[in-house]
Amino acid sequence: MRIVFSTGDIHGIGPEIILKSVLSRPSGEDTYVAAGSFKALEFYRDLLGLPVELRRIDGPDAIAKITPEPGVLHVLSVAEPETIQPGTLSRTAGEIAMRSLETAAALCRDGLCDALVTAPLHKEAIALAGYRNTGHTDFLADFFGVSSQIMLFVDPVSGLKVALATIHEPLSKVPALVRAMDLDAFFTTLAGSMRRDFRLDEPKIAVLGLNPHASDGGVMGSEEATVIRPAIERLSGAMQIDGPFPADGFFGAKRYRNYDLIVAMYHDQGLLPFKVLAFDTGINVTLGLPIVRTSPDHGTGFDKAGKGTASERSFLEATKLGATIARNRTQTTE
Amino acid sequence: MRIVFSTGDIHGIGPEIILKSVLSRPSGEDTYVAAGSFKALEFYRDLLGLPVELRRIDGPDAIAKITPEPGVLHVLSVAEPETIQPGTLSRTAGEIAMRSLETAAALCRDGLCDALVTAPLHKEAIALAGYRNTGHTDFLADFFGVSSQIMLFVDPVSGLKVALATIHEPLSKVPALVRAMDLDAFFTTLAGSMRRDFRLDEPKIAVLGLNPHASDGGVMGSEEATVIRPAIERLSGAMQIDGPFPADGFFGAKRYRNYDLIVAMYHDQGLLPFKVLAFDTGINVTLGLPIVRTSPDHGTGFDKAGKGTASERSFLEATKLGATIARNRTQTTE
Repeated sequence: MRIVFSTGDIHGIGPEIILKSVLSRPSGEDTYVAAGSFKALEFYRDLLGLPVELRRIDGPDAIAKITPEPGVLHVLSVAEPETIQPGTLSRTAGEIAMRSLETAAALCRDGLCDALVTAPLHKEAIALAGYRNTGHTDFLADFFGVSSQIMLFVDPVSGLKVALATIHEPLSKVPALVRAMDLDAFFTTLAGSMRRDFRLDEPKIAVLGLNPHASDGGVMGSEEATVIRPAIERLSGAMQIDGPFPADGFFGAKRYRNYDLIVAMYHDQGLLPFKVLAFDTGINVTLGLPIVRTSPDHGTGFDKAGKGTASERSFLEATKLGATIARNRTQTTE
Repeated sequence: MRIVFSTGDIHGIGPEIILKSVLSRPSGEDTYVAAGSFKALEFYRDLLGLPVELRRIDGPDAIAKITPEPGVLHVLSVAEPETIQPGTLSRTAGEIAMRSLETAAALCRDGLCDALVTAPLHKEAIALAGYRNTGHTDFLADFFGVSSQIMLFVDPVSGLKVALATIHEPLSKVPALVRAMDLDAFFTTLAGSMRRDFRLDEPKIAVLGLNPHASDGGVMGSEEATVIRPAIERLSGAMQIDGPFPADGFFGAKRYRNYDLIVAMYHDQGLLPFKVLAFDTGINVTLGLPIVRTSPDHGTGFDKAGKGTASERSFLEATKLGATIARNRTQTTE
């Protein structure tokens, strides 16, 4: 598979973890392209002594001719900075990050690359550069003209997968959003991703309740009875889907081990147990886009930039999973 | 200390875990009284071969004369059933459970016992018996005339302590409840409990945000800026209190290890990480009552009743902590 990296903020740890990930991957079937600043990749390579061979490519069409070689990163330059100052907020770094993302997304859209793995952006830097998007999700929604993306969190060590029904919403809006959403379509998309992206022919999905104790029969809230349970019942002939479960007891009793996917109703409900169980190894997959996109579960790490101490673990796992999903989608005939 | 047990539902695992806890405790300074059914305790003792010496006491005044002896449980009979049928729902068992709780609470109120440890009730059984209370919390609020109790969850293995700002509330009501509550009084009560009950002279308290990412500067919700942070700032001269923290990152990065107490804004936010980190050993402490009350973090276990397989671990830890808190309160001179 042809994997393209967006380099994120070049004053953060993005270039470093890209280089380290290329070195960590055994030579295999995959090729690596970075859409971003050649100078920044070269700067961190030399500063940190990371023996990656950087090969400049002239344009998108050259990507089709690349063959897998260990330790080689092909670079499509989208813009170059005058200076590189690790750990600092900069308009230029924000500008390059967004141009990198746009180019990398276009390479996937046009079928020249098979999966996009995004290094972290800095929201303030892209705001300085005049972008109104708040980050990857907003940009990709606009770029691909999609209205709903699903964030899926994957722990490659344990296999734990958690999807969120609502993401970055004030808690006060969550119950109404859950009541209003098309849960049938949401669960169906998730089941489809499990089959297509993860090759799970009969995925087992567990759905958490919105309220404490999943409302305990309606004593503490009504959404389980009015929307969540009816959706589960409507779909139960078409897929293996159970719930709604009381969230605390479900995770406390380790029932998540019996399921391929856990669906949480809101951010902290899904990410509290996920981060306790999978911290340092968690990665994100964005569902609902026409392309494969994965990302590490951390930020720009300005405090670590240029020091060589950043861990590439999450980014490397995101790269591996991006390649796996791209391969699975290619092989799926349905 | 003189510990009194309410026996909970005698068709559940309550009597068994009380007997096992008495056997597990080394002979020490504490004496044990069960307010409940003598016949039920005798039934499970003989059925399961648990060599506890049951000594009937005639009335409350006899408690003052009890001295510590290993393996001895003193029993104040409050009511006796005609038959005992483990694992079944029964009006009589509900009636005895509530009379047990009332007597045990009164023994603490009257200074005859120093701590109450409650075995689990079955809500349907007490409803069958005509009680309108939904459980311990409701009953104790009425009995002691208190309007607000705080549930504190303690893991005796790791020392992790989590308190909840709201408990059994629909998620849709949580934001308004947090906005309306007297957070200053709540945090002050918690700090007082840490000092008095846990002998932590300078407790470090961490407060979680209500919204995802603790609202990320107001992008996702306002309660951090309008009520949580102001309360923390007002109190920061009087105690060590930090936050509001993004809940998922706080637990993911194991920052809870730097604090004596974590304050969660709602049920699942506190209990998801707590149960993942402390399952099987978690216990509850009820703050805001004029007496010491602890309880195990599990239910009646009808499916295990009478089989001898119930673990007394949580109940034993609740007993130990009840004794410790009672001792600490006695020794505190302030």
